[in-house]
Amino acid sequence: MKTLHISPSSLHRVPFRSVSDCIGTGRLGLALHREYVDQLRLVQEHCHFRYIRGHGLFCDDIGIYQRVSTDHGEVTRYNFTYLDRIMDTYLELGLRPFLELGFMPSKLGSGTQTVFYWKGNVTPPADDQEWVLLVENTLKHLAARYGAQEVAQWPVEVWNEPNLPGFWEHADRDRYLHLYDITSRAVCRAVPGIRVGGPAVCGGDSCLPWIDAFLSFSETHDLPLDFLTRHVYMARTPERNGRYVYHSMWSAEQSMQELADTREVMQRHARFASIPVYVTEFNTSYHPFCPIHDTVQNAAIMSSFLALVGDYADSCSYWTFGDVFEEQGIPSTPFHGGFGLVANGQIPKPTMWTFQFFNQLHGQCVYRDDHLILMQDGDRYEGILWQICPEKQEDLQVNLSLQAGERSLLVCERVDMNHANPLQDWLNMGQCPNPSAAQTALLKRSAQPEIRTCVPEITDGCAHFSLQACDHAVIHFMLSPAPQSRDDGYNEAWYR
Amino acid sequence: MKTLHISPSSLHRVPFRSVSDCIGTGRLGLALHREYVDQLRLVQEHCHFRYIRGHGLFCDDIGIYQRVSTDHGEVTRYNFTYLDRIMDTYLELGLRPFLELGFMPSKLGSGTQTVFYWKGNVTPPADDQEWVLLVENTLKHLAARYGAQEVAQWPVEVWNEPNLPGFWEHADRDRYLHLYDITSRAVCRAVPGIRVGGPAVCGGDSCLPWIDAFLSFSETHDLPLDFLTRHVYMARTPERNGRYVYHSMWSAEQSMQELADTREVMQRHARFASIPVYVTEFNTSYHPFCPIHDTVQNAAIMSSFLALVGDYADSCSYWTFGDVFEEQGIPSTPFHGGFGLVANGQIPKPTMWTFQFFNQLHGQCVYRDDHLILMQDGDRYEGILWQICPEKQEDLQVNLSLQAGERSLLVCERVDMNHANPLQDWLNMGQCPNPSAAQTALLKRSAQPEIRTCVPEITDGCAHFSLQACDHAVIHFMLSPAPQSRDDGYNEAWYR
Amino acid sequence: MKTLHISPSSLHRVPFRSVSDCIGTGRLGLALHREYVDQLRLVQEHCHFRYIRGHGLFCDDIGIYQRVSTDHGEVTRYNFTYLDRIMDTYLELGLRPFLELGFMPSKLGSGTQTVFYWKGNVTPPADDQEWVLLVENTLKHLAARYGAQEVAQWPVEVWNEPNLPGFWEHADRDRYLHLYDITSRAVCRAVPGIRVGGPAVCGGDSCLPWIDAFLSFSETHDLPLDFLTRHVYMARTPERNGRYVYHSMWSAEQSMQELADTREVMQRHARFASIPVYVTEFNTSYHPFCPIHDTVQNAAIMSSFLALVGDYADSCSYWTFGDVFEEQGIPSTPFHGGFGLVANGQIPKPTMWTFQFFNQLHGQCVYRDDHLILMQDGDRYEGILWQICPEKQEDLQVNLSLQAGERSLLVCERVDMNHANPLQDWLNMGQCPNPSAAQTALLKRSAQPEIRTCVPEITDGCAHFSLQACDHAVIHFMLSPAPQSRDDGYNEAWYR
Amino acid sequence: MKTLHISPSSLHRVPFRSVSDCIGTGRLGLALHREYVDQLRLVQEHCHFRYIRGHGLFCDDIGIYQRVSTDHGEVTRYNFTYLDRIMDTYLELGLRPFLELGFMPSKLGSGTQTVFYWKGNVTPPADDQEWVLLVENTLKHLAARYGAQEVAQWPVEVWNEPNLPGFWEHADRDRYLHLYDITSRAVCRAVPGIRVGGPAVCGGDSCLPWIDAFLSFSETHDLPLDFLTRHVYMARTPERNGRYVYHSMWSAEQSMQELADTREVMQRHARFASIPVYVTEFNTSYHPFCPIHDTVQNAAIMSSFLALVGDYADSCSYWTFGDVFEEQGIPSTPFHGGFGLVANGQIPKPTMWTFQFFNQLHGQCVYRDDHLILMQDGDRYEGILWQICPEKQEDLQVNLSLQAGERSLLVCERVDMNHANPLQDWLNMGQCPNPSAAQTALLKRSAQPEIRTCVPEITDGCAHFSLQACDHAVIHFMLSPAPQSRDDGYNEAWYR
Repeated sequence: MKTLHISPSSLHRVPFRSVSDCIGTGRLGLALHREYVDQLRLVQEHCHFRYIRGHGLFCDDIGIYQRVSTDHGEVTRYNFTYLDRIMDTYLELGLRPFLELGFMPSKLGSGTQTVFYWKGNVTPPADDQEWVLLVENTLKHLAARYGAQEVAQWPVEVWNEPNLPGFWEHADRDRYLHLYDITSRAVCRAVPGIRVGGPAVCGGDSCLPWIDAFLSFSETHDLPLDFLTRHVYMARTPERNGRYVYHSMWSAEQSMQELADTREVMQRHARFASIPVYVTEFNTSYHPFCPIHDTVQNAAIMSSFLALVGDYADSCSYWTFGDVFEEQGIPSTPFHGGFGLVANGQIPKPTMWTFQFFNQLHGQCVYRDDHLILMQDGDRYEGILWQICPEKQEDLQVNLSLQAGERSLLVCERVDMNHANPLQDWLNMGQCPNPSAAQTALLKRSAQPEIRTCVPEITDGCAHFSLQACDHAVIHFMLSPAPQSRDDGYNEAWYR
Repeated sequence: MKTLHISPSSLHRVPFRSVSDCIGTGRLGLALHREYVDQLRLVQEHCHFRYIRGHGLFCDDIGIYQRVSTDHGEVTRYNFTYLDRIMDTYLELGLRPFLELGFMPSKLGSGTQTVFYWKGNVTPPADDQEWVLLVENTLKHLAARYGAQEVAQWPVEVWNEPNLPGFWEHADRDRYLHLYDITSRAVCRAVPGIRVGGPAVCGGDSCLPWIDAFLSFSETHDLPLDFLTRHVYMARTPERNGRYVYHSMWSAEQSMQELADTREVMQRHARFASIPVYVTEFNTSYHPFCPIHDTVQNAAIMSSFLALVGDYADSCSYWTFGDVFEEQGIPSTPFHGGFGLVANGQIPKPTMWTFQFFNQLHGQCVYRDDHLILMQDGDRYEGILWQICPEKQEDLQVNLSLQAGERSLLVCERVDMNHANPLQDWLNMGQCPNPSAAQTALLKRSAQPEIRTCVPEITDGCAHFSLQACDHAVIHFMLSPAPQSRDDGYNEAWYR
Repeated sequence: MKTLHISPSSLHRVPFRSVSDCIGTGRLGLALHREYVDQLRLVQEHCHFRYIRGHGLFCDDIGIYQRVSTDHGEVTRYNFTYLDRIMDTYLELGLRPFLELGFMPSKLGSGTQTVFYWKGNVTPPADDQEWVLLVENTLKHLAARYGAQEVAQWPVEVWNEPNLPGFWEHADRDRYLHLYDITSRAVCRAVPGIRVGGPAVCGGDSCLPWIDAFLSFSETHDLPLDFLTRHVYMARTPERNGRYVYHSMWSAEQSMQELADTREVMQRHARFASIPVYVTEFNTSYHPFCPIHDTVQNAAIMSSFLALVGDYADSCSYWTFGDVFEEQGIPSTPFHGGFGLVANGQIPKPTMWTFQFFNQLHGQCVYRDDHLILMQDGDRYEGILWQICPEKQEDLQVNLSLQAGERSLLVCERVDMNHANPLQDWLNMGQCPNPSAAQTALLKRSAQPEIRTCVPEITDGCAHFSLQACDHAVIHFMLSPAPQSRDDGYNEAWYR
Repeated sequence: MKTLHISPSSLHRVPFRSVSDCIGTGRLGLALHREYVDQLRLVQEHCHFRYIRGHGLFCDDIGIYQRVSTDHGEVTRYNFTYLDRIMDTYLELGLRPFLELGFMPSKLGSGTQTVFYWKGNVTPPADDQEWVLLVENTLKHLAARYGAQEVAQWPVEVWNEPNLPGFWEHADRDRYLHLYDITSRAVCRAVPGIRVGGPAVCGGDSCLPWIDAFLSFSETHDLPLDFLTRHVYMARTPERNGRYVYHSMWSAEQSMQELADTREVMQRHARFASIPVYVTEFNTSYHPFCPIHDTVQNAAIMSSFLALVGDYADSCSYWTFGDVFEEQGIPSTPFHGGFGLVANGQIPKPTMWTFQFFNQLHGQCVYRDDHLILMQDGDRYEGILWQICPEKQEDLQVNLSLQAGERSLLVCERVDMNHANPLQDWLNMGQCPNPSAAQTALLKRSAQPEIRTCVPEITDGCAHFSLQACDHAVIHFMLSPAPQSRDDGYNEAWYR
């Protein structure tokens, strides 16, 4: 057992930013699904994200780009039926789109290479002008429907992971730079004041040269560039078994190095040295059938990540909110290692609570280490404690003494192997692929964090209490004044 | 620690009836309240009662009986606006009214004596004919609105606790028998086939002579009498402090003696020897400011009561479902010892779960003692275990070995001092009289039973598991087959 | 047929204020009712009022003022259970309370005189200090619960109609002035920055001396007085029949004279010459069983009132939003001449649409006469046309020519004898006192205004269209640009 | 003006069956969409269909049939994630699936021919055994999830329109008969007691030989065949313009001949002579971009169809309930001639009301001609009147005299060019492709039928009233007793 002591003298103003304001989603076309919307509503009720970003805006299932036969021959028409339905949904749920421009409508692609089970075309446009018109008309349509002022607040990113050959034909850098050139200008023409960025690269150090080149090119060509985007995944080399993937993880500290390196590259380009960095995707594994995503371990790892990422980035976007997701095929079981914060059937996974805990933090950070964040807001303290156990690690005890008035209430919410761990219950059930309504109801109930209250002892003007964290625990706690009241004649001690 | 062993040889078919199909409510006029309806909806979602019974059908706040000035002088008119609204609500929530005819409209009373903070007039009618017309017209109106076939399924009870002078002027038995005479005949005239009963008496042995006289009178006068009603409260002599009341309780076994005695009196009246007995009110204390009602102890005591009452009665009605209740004044705090299964603010109290657990039981009872009920339904076992600790009593451990297939799932839901005990959380909060929305949300969350699953060891064709009950625990458990499935390549052991 | 011509040359900037931002309600205790809340929600969905004002804040049914026996004898306690529930409801529906301080808790009254079926005590306090503490503690409690900043935005009015002996014992002016003195000071002590006013008088010229004396007294004693309040009812001498009342009405112009006179009195008191005037109650009849309230005629009369009242007053409050109302007893039929904008059963009455129409107006008023208001907002015109027919009056035709682009859409919503007139449908049904669910559903459907669209002819840069108003019609219309679009190959003329 | 007189002597018991108990849907995969579910919920609230039938059960987007790589090579796995979600939805909405087995998973197809924008593979199975296992395992899965007793009530149809080469490669009859052979047997093995049928043919007389051959084959091979299915469309040769199609229509009488012919063919096959005939698809046009579907004319034509079809068929299924539909591409405007009873945006089309009117009829039919159906149920009459105007036709007046008591209420709901015609309002709006929320709200409101009540004159024991039908009107009316009531003193004539 490792023991940590926190007392008033341990506390000072510490820099800390909670920057998890964006959430990822599988291809946008799935936003037409009812289960998707219900999962997203659930996530929003708890985590209150402000932006949502996903792939496939221009893919065939949304159907924006149409070629139509008329008396005058075949012409291009734009069909915004599904796009509007999706954007309406996001706004209804309090989310603004973080628009990723891609992939290619198959009729506009210069080739036939596709990515994913759902076959997104990843080739450059066969006709630059048609692409530019597609981008421009789509943005103008959105501005007409939702107001230019509103749409100007939707960040726009050009393509996804062009440095990977699976996502951009041959990972052809020059063609990407050209794409960024024509696209970023079109975006700004369509909606004055809108912010645009890239290059949405993925991978560790390997993507730094890309970023470097991208910044040089943008500088040279005087392109609009309001923010820089990249992805961060913590997974190391995978082992495969069937459709499933398993790997060990880099630590959060190691992952931060990627962002520090990114900032360093940016320093070389004066004009862009201080633009915001948006981590437009992050997670442990980058694979939608990696069982870690469903675990309490994942919740603890994400805590360690969120505690640090605000030091390097201005926004980060967990990939993804839900398990209505088809990149590697349709899941056949509710728990299968999908990216989602919510499993199919509206079952919260442990990691959802990590985001709820971090996104509700407020006040001033007064303590931060690799297991604990503590915030103060007047006479109220709020904190998150986590413990990751990749290998056998010591349990952790934290003894806290915090300034308090006459009487205080401590409220603790706990996620660990025994609480808010529906994966374990589903394993106990026998891994039923298609849970009945009653089974799903049970999983939802057991997916709630334990909530406990107590009244800490007060001595010397401090409330004293201990928290134990073991087995991937993530604990949110709040200490606040709770003056004693009592109705005349009420004796709470009589019936015990 | 007391230990109990249950093995297949302990099990046989045992008689047991779950008869808690009715629920009590404060005066019907409060059914117009939104908070009342919301509490009742919550209770119905969990407990699925079939009938609801409360006071005050004819009281001034519902306003059925009106005297109106016309050109021809003052005449009687019936106003069914509020009555219909209330009945609509009950039916919407899946409940049929169990109609208690009373108390007296103040304009029809022969005196001014009232009961309760809300001043129900408890005097006999000044004019028998006007009373009979009121009863008849009300029932005919209901039959016209809801269908005679439907209304014929609503039991009707004449008055409430006429053997207590607070509820019926001078507790005048002869006047009650006369009231029953004219009323029961009016009821049957109004809706053929409807069932009517009485005398709704309260108190221990003291009410047996009343029952005896009532049955004799009904026999002699050949009155309709389809069921006999009485109340059972477990409380002994109270101590008062301010508006609060405290007492020790009779055991469930002792309370059953009252019902056994009632059955014995009935044997003396051949015609009514085997009519159903309805316990139209029961609870621990009969006082709405007795703190026991909010406790887990109350939940455990009610378990002991429900395990036995079906041996003596054909229906029982817990008094009451909710805390929108004004008999001794308006509560000024959410927890104050009100009768309700739900506290104001939609917070479930521990006893609500007792009723949920008992009302969902199905299958054949195979074991019953004073701590445990076990039901079997094919290859599924379901049980309830409880432990009451009025004084310091041993903790209880039950070791169960139940026939099972290859793999089984055990699901346990637990209510005890540390789970589903929002009273304790509210005490920790400092007994805030008017919780904020956030405080109420916390109380609701902490009011949920713990739910746990596990996979018991199987040997010799039996699943083996233990349950511990201490500190007023009420535990519902279910053992059911859970065959193992597994998707190709899925390895649940990788991330632990 | 009277004909009016409106062309671009008829239009100029005309002063007009829509000031109907407050709505009345029967006694606050009824806000606990579900039907009340549902009616208020319906009204808010359509009319978006910002404040709500009603009687009975301190009456016994809300139960704030309690005398409790303790070991130290009887003491005063405040019970805010119901008050909080009611305020929560209002805020949930987007309404701030306009607090009317009154009537008297019966235990604090100096006498036993009551008003209404629900018996509000209308006597001065038996103990000034107890009253002042009641006011102060109630406001402090609200500030603690909802925030002082929020509560400072709730206007406070002292008592209701003290110039009528039914509402204030003997209509004793000096005692009212004293009450205002101690109360207004208490209010400002409790919540700094809050606004307080009076004297809430009712009646025509007869109340002017009251206002005059009130202003003098407030000036002399240097009392807080942020706004002046009075009531305006249009009804003349009533005829009674049973519980119903019938009268002819003053015109809106005649009613405005009462407000002009009020303003004139205010001019005599320099300090208060320009404080706001709030009409805290207005309607045609002041009686809740006057059949006019349910009629389309009432909707037309209210249009004439709302078109003018902003010239004289800064806020007005229609008395009342709904028919959950008991001042003269419980209604026994859905249509009975109640004040409500909504009849029991959630059935909108014609007058609700008048308020929807006026409260949604925006832009600049460009035309106003005694039948028509026309607003312009850029290239959009919006108007309301009404026609009152107390005796046989000419039908009205308005021919409009309004500047327009190439193609415009006209949308008209109509309320008249044949549209949005559920009273007529209920009369046709035979005046059923207790409509079934199916009957209520039919009444709701027939209660909707007719909505029609058309494409007016455009010549000389103007769209030309006519509106006919007869039989108490209230018509809302909007003209807006509607450019023509058409999908390739779509021929709307084929199937006609 | 054509005039019809109906009097008591015109009325006799007339045979009439309302058989519209099933509704069609675009491919089942779209049932995952939220807009789809919302449209279906709206339809069910009004029309209360009992079954739903659509294409694409086995298509790739539902993803049931999966080939998975394992250590033992590639194996077949079934993925029921989406299937269960869809079936859950249908049952939640009160619908049982009418299972159409088709089309072919692309990995199981023997070829690559596809149908529709969404590319359903229409080739025979490459491996009969794999197909049989797919059918069997799917049905067994459903029986395990929903209960065999429940699933036994879901009719099963083998394939869709195999007589058209677009839907079944080469329209190869022998291969279809073989498919029916192996499939129907598999179905019955999987769920004993389930009912199976075919051949789901389409087209006029041309499909009679197919039916004949199908019956012969089934007889010879002793196949299970519980019902015969075919389609009926009323459209004649189309004209095309862009993606739109226009045609004139056969009359309902002409369409009935197709069914009469079908019955005649069945007479030749003794074993199947009297099995039920299910029209598993019908509509005016068979094309999802034929503007007639949105018109009131379509509503009138469907009335004429529904009045007759019960004479020949035992069930019929309008193709389709909603406009979430992609067979010829994604609609780019809310009104585009889609099949749906509801337009995108939840806007009811006129034809929805036809189905509501017919599906709510009850009682005994007492009159039927080519414009009118009249039902009697005790003292209540209910009827539907319609008027189709393909070319300029006379308006229709019906004068009715129906037996009635002292006072009656007539309720009329009207759909015609000026009522419940949102297409016209959308045309007036300028055919906006993507209506805003406000525009959609307006379209929904104007899409409601006019509802009017009146009190017909009663003479000689009959109520007398007239109905006018012009311009494709569909009118539902109901005459029912409405005795007069009146509260003391209420004078409805005072304010008029």
